[in-house]
Amino acid sequence: MRMRRKPWAEEEIKNNPHLVVPRPHEWRGKWHQFFNNTNPIHIEIGTGKGQFIIEMAKTHPHINFIGLELNSSVLGVALRKLIAARQETELDNCCLIRENATQLTDLFAPGEVERIYLNFSDPWPKRRHAKRRLTYHTFLDLYSEILAENGEIHLKTDNEKFFEFSLNSLSDYGFRLKNITFDLHNSDFEGNIMTEYEEKFAAQGMKIYRCEAVMGEGKR
Amino acid sequence: MRMRRKPWAEEEIKNNPHLVVPRPHEWRGKWHQFFNNTNPIHIEIGTGKGQFIIEMAKTHPHINFIGLELNSSVLGVALRKLIAARQETELDNCCLIRENATQLTDLFAPGEVERIYLNFSDPWPKRRHAKRRLTYHTFLDLYSEILAENGEIHLKTDNEKFFEFSLNSLSDYGFRLKNITFDLHNSDFEGNIMTEYEEKFAAQGMKIYRCEAVMGEGKR
Repeated sequence: MRMRRKPWAEEEIKNNPHLVVPRPHEWRGKWHQFFNNTNPIHIEIGTGKGQFIIEMAKTHPHINFIGLELNSSVLGVALRKLIAARQETELDNCCLIRENATQLTDLFAPGEVERIYLNFSDPWPKRRHAKRRLTYHTFLDLYSEILAENGEIHLKTDNEKFFEFSLNSLSDYGFRLKNITFDLHNSDFEGNIMTEYEEKFAAQGMKIYRCEAVMGEGKR
Repeated sequence: MRMRRKPWAEEEIKNNPHLVVPRPHEWRGKWHQFFNNTNPIHIEIGTGKGQFIIEMAKTHPHINFIGLELNSSVLGVALRKLIAARQETELDNCCLIRENATQLTDLFAPGEVERIYLNFSDPWPKRRHAKRRLTYHTFLDLYSEILAENGEIHLKTDNEKFFEFSLNSLSDYGFRLKNITFDLHNSDFEGNIMTEYEEKFAAQGMKIYRCEAVMGEGKR
């Protein structure tokens, strides 16, 4: 996601350590302590402007949500959205982290995460950039390390090629695919929460692809 | 496939019992004897006019191919094509059966088949007809009974909805999906052999979907 730099972002992130966790590595294996409950932990990798993770947190109060976003300006926008949401409603089950996927195993202990959301990840269409796709097998190594038994990856994208690549990569790795849909907004799927991008794409009539992948037995 | 009735078909089928096996149930568990070798057996369900299975047989002489087609007129066309092919080249590894998928477990013993091809099967788009789709779970019951360990289903279709349904149905059943492609004719897949339909669709620029499904461990 490209966005004009927000000069205020760094400062606001610093001033809200309860919402953008300053040294998240220190909570590795202790996220239940952080949230002060034993509810499942769901994370979104590349959380962008935050609409998805915040709406999910509102809708599912008994799940803890952590959004990862490396870009400070983008994270700043998500933070403001989270602050606004917390003025409207109690929302203790959502926080943000300024990190990206490469850090996952330093951020979460084995089995600590129940679900990973990948929403409209960069498709990196060029073959030589395949390694950067968030469903490349090296990333699946990280996901399978932090995911709980029967943990799941939920993926949405508007990019058909990335979707095709992801289905193959996930299945080859040993994830069991389910609830595959080629047109989410004209499917039976209920309770979809849209990202900012998704709203824009959907308004243009573009198809949204979605699937779920369950970690194979014996992977944990 | 709809086709004008061929009045000559019944007679020609009767006159070629070495090509259209008259009482195929009697070969259940003995197809290797029928072919007089121990090569793997691949079957196509709904073989239509026969181009796929005949070209496959020419290309893979060390595999035995059996095409199932219930419609006599369509089967007659496939038979003529097979006779013509055998005038050009030796082709002892291909025969036809006038049956459909419902008969599979009476035609083949457990584990007797290495691979099943489903090419451009009727998508039965209406929800109330879902049971008729050749990837409905009741058909997968039959396939998994006759398939060998690590046996595979190879599926091609031009129908996106049927493809979506099939991916979910196969994966839910425990088949491991691989080599999923949303645009076969613009993919890396090599050695594709086209059906009559596929040639027509491809000439119109329509996308062809394809996947392979490997029988899960412990299913046999």
